[in-house]
Amino acid sequence: MIRFVAVDIDGTLTFRDRKLDIAAVGALRKAESLGLPVVLATGNVLAFAETAATLLGASGPLIAEDGGIVFDPSSKREHMLGDRVDADRGLAALEREFGPLEQTRSSAARLTGLTLKRAIKAEAAEELFRREGLDLAAVDSGFAIHLRSPNVNKGNALRKVASLLKVSLVEVAAVGDGPNDIEMLKVAGLSFAVANSDEAVKRVCTYVTKEPHGKGVVEAIEKIISLRG
Amino acid sequence: MIRFVAVDIDGTLTFRDRKLDIAAVGALRKAESLGLPVVLATGNVLAFAETAATLLGASGPLIAEDGGIVFDPSSKREHMLGDRVDADRGLAALEREFGPLEQTRSSAARLTGLTLKRAIKAEAAEELFRREGLDLAAVDSGFAIHLRSPNVNKGNALRKVASLLKVSLVEVAAVGDGPNDIEMLKVAGLSFAVANSDEAVKRVCTYVTKEPHGKGVVEAIEKIISLRG
Repeated sequence: MIRFVAVDIDGTLTFRDRKLDIAAVGALRKAESLGLPVVLATGNVLAFAETAATLLGASGPLIAEDGGIVFDPSSKREHMLGDRVDADRGLAALEREFGPLEQTRSSAARLTGLTLKRAIKAEAAEELFRREGLDLAAVDSGFAIHLRSPNVNKGNALRKVASLLKVSLVEVAAVGDGPNDIEMLKVAGLSFAVANSDEAVKRVCTYVTKEPHGKGVVEAIEKIISLRG
Repeated sequence: MIRFVAVDIDGTLTFRDRKLDIAAVGALRKAESLGLPVVLATGNVLAFAETAATLLGASGPLIAEDGGIVFDPSSKREHMLGDRVDADRGLAALEREFGPLEQTRSSAARLTGLTLKRAIKAEAAEELFRREGLDLAAVDSGFAIHLRSPNVNKGNALRKVASLLKVSLVEVAAVGDGPNDIEMLKVAGLSFAVANSDEAVKRVCTYVTKEPHGKGVVEAIEKIISLRG
């Protein structure tokens, strides 16, 4: 039986313009009221995840910084699954190669990586990191280029959340839309790609919803509830 | 004619449990689509206000920390209308008098004041500050005890927003529910207390809505739009 559901925020609970699709809110609250905690998972900083959780009423642990941080609301502890030092080294290498690069506004608040405005290609950054022997990933989220340790992803963070909640991964459902959701969707026992997802995301999921964004989340939650019986 | 509308978050856009009342979201987006920017005003930190603005689609400047910070999204500038030094001094004085006091989780992120868990009375704190000659206010928001400079309030912050947007205060509408909204509601040309407001808040407002929380915000926005003609 599914014990909690992890849900990506940008593009899944929101439209492409980052505004909340309120269609999903009722379904998230219904899941919570049935004892199915919602775990929000975002590439954004922890303060963003915490605000979204407060406003939406999501009670589960939070995954922020693409899995760099897992916040446990019951203990108020932040579990760091990455650190910022390698990302700062990577940025220095990139600026030697490409000249000054602008970080996004939230980058200064990041504890386990950093985010650049999309002025360079992620592939070019990773090639440079390989050449310079830096153990660092560059991921284009569509909103920013994220620099972080290669082992930091929402999948490893979901393992940590399952361990904190003492739940087996087969009892976990996840909903997402983007490339940075793939590891999380692969790790979860039951996985949903909303209709606006990339093809690569749809391929790894148990289900693809008919509707995009929030309406897709409604479908996913209804399916999870029906499977619980 | 009203040129922008300032809206409190906790208790006004949210229920008492801090969850968003989604009834209001459509009205805020309608205001924005009619060229009436929404200015979110909160006692919380700037990261909270920014996340709420992103998810709701509010495009105006942001008022955070009860007016300590005004953030202008067009210039990306944070205007500081208070600072933290006096609040830290006040906390030291309180701890000498009452023993160790616990700050809220967001307190460390505050730049213009600090917030304590509600273990002491605001009145007792202010009496101590007077006795010790500290120019500091203690305000009970219902969620926390806020320590900040006496000139920091949402009313002075609203003046700053009006000046940034080159709008006269008679062309400003504001919606709120709590004691920390009173200065803002007094300063605005047109003011609305949602039905769940304290009596002291209702007394200073042009209108009191029939409905509480988000449904009250819907009434306020509809009224503002009808007055624009």
